[in-house]
Amino acid sequence: MDKLNLNQHISQQYNEELEDVRASVLKMGGVVEEQLANAVRALIHCDAVLGRTVVKNDASVNSLEIEIDEECTRIMARRQPAASDLRLIVAVIKTINDLERIGDEVKRVGKMVSEEMDGALDEEIRHELEHMGELVLKMLGQVLDAFARTDVQTSLDVVKADRKVDVKYKSIIRQLMTFMASDATSIPTIMKVLWAARAMERMGDRCQNIAEYVIYLVLGKDVRHGGIDDLMAELAKES
Amino acid sequence: MDKLNLNQHISQQYNEELEDVRASVLKMGGVVEEQLANAVRALIHCDAVLGRTVVKNDASVNSLEIEIDEECTRIMARRQPAASDLRLIVAVIKTINDLERIGDEVKRVGKMVSEEMDGALDEEIRHELEHMGELVLKMLGQVLDAFARTDVQTSLDVVKADRKVDVKYKSIIRQLMTFMASDATSIPTIMKVLWAARAMERMGDRCQNIAEYVIYLVLGKDVRHGGIDDLMAELAKES
Repeated sequence: MDKLNLNQHISQQYNEELEDVRASVLKMGGVVEEQLANAVRALIHCDAVLGRTVVKNDASVNSLEIEIDEECTRIMARRQPAASDLRLIVAVIKTINDLERIGDEVKRVGKMVSEEMDGALDEEIRHELEHMGELVLKMLGQVLDAFARTDVQTSLDVVKADRKVDVKYKSIIRQLMTFMASDATSIPTIMKVLWAARAMERMGDRCQNIAEYVIYLVLGKDVRHGGIDDLMAELAKES
Repeated sequence: MDKLNLNQHISQQYNEELEDVRASVLKMGGVVEEQLANAVRALIHCDAVLGRTVVKNDASVNSLEIEIDEECTRIMARRQPAASDLRLIVAVIKTINDLERIGDEVKRVGKMVSEEMDGALDEEIRHELEHMGELVLKMLGQVLDAFARTDVQTSLDVVKADRKVDVKYKSIIRQLMTFMASDATSIPTIMKVLWAARAMERMGDRCQNIAEYVIYLVLGKDVRHGGIDDLMAELAKES
């Protein structure tokens, strides 16, 4: 498999096109990050106005996806990229798909806050959600960084971070179930919190997907289905 | 935008490669269909053994995805496809990603049944889940059919069907919440049913994604973000 070799094209313009696509992905990622930060803030403070802003701004994430998608198709048709560039473009197409779906989950949280929350959350639950939100936000920042620097180690850190998110998620769900059992009138509110926690858990999964595309891009290894642990063990042995 | 023009290549072998990829997608779709049918059956009958079979067989869905993905990259590198073939290949890459994720949701249902269900489900809930499972299974069959025949009208039917699934999902969630409120001891079991319903709802969303790729493939129109209603209105006017 040939090495990843960006910026080595005879055509300066082709280089620029590929660089532009990478920059657009990071821009899109930045918008999603901001959206997520706002959604978490809205959720924690039951801020319906901020929730509505998040819902409204999801449209810009969607248009960025369509824009980048079209640019990728144009480059493929015009430049007929060789193997390593092709891997980059395929990784971009997949990455923006996951970013857009993270955006959808963020929008879901925003919508929930804007329409359906009544009253403040229990203090304990609020702290847990806030912590989970911080973990996912950090993961998203990390995976964008991994993409920007096409860095395998950072990608693996993202995978590890997702395990933390999953643990946090399970603990929140357990707590929520206890709350529901002790007070049936709380069920409708708790259900909304539950969906918000689920949405954040899914965002973590999608960050992990992107990390796996970066690993594929750099190493040419498809680690999607259980290959991650092997790779971690391999790298640990080498170092 | 150039017309979709399959089977028009000078190289017979290239034609065959594209046909093979399409056939592989349908094969993968068939495996996911079978998995889903089994998962729904396992859920309805609380059949832990069948649940475990579903979990085990998810690996074959995953390997099919990786295989087709690699084949697409190979074709792109070797054939440097022109615009309409490129659209097909990009549509395939996206479609198999969604099929694989449908497989993941199916596996989740299987896992739930294999590990955690205790006792039979309430009769009413069982009927509702069964009906929802049938709706999603029908959607999946329909969207594979739409892909096989690159057919816009069938794709639109899939989109319409997803709205039915969403309505059914909301009704199930409402019922489950009533159950939880009336009997706190039922909460752990109900929660599992709730995740299963959620998983099926997501499968429906992913079928809709695939339908949208087919529409893009045929019409070159990106209808992902709210363009579907416009397209339906347009086609209704024309006919």
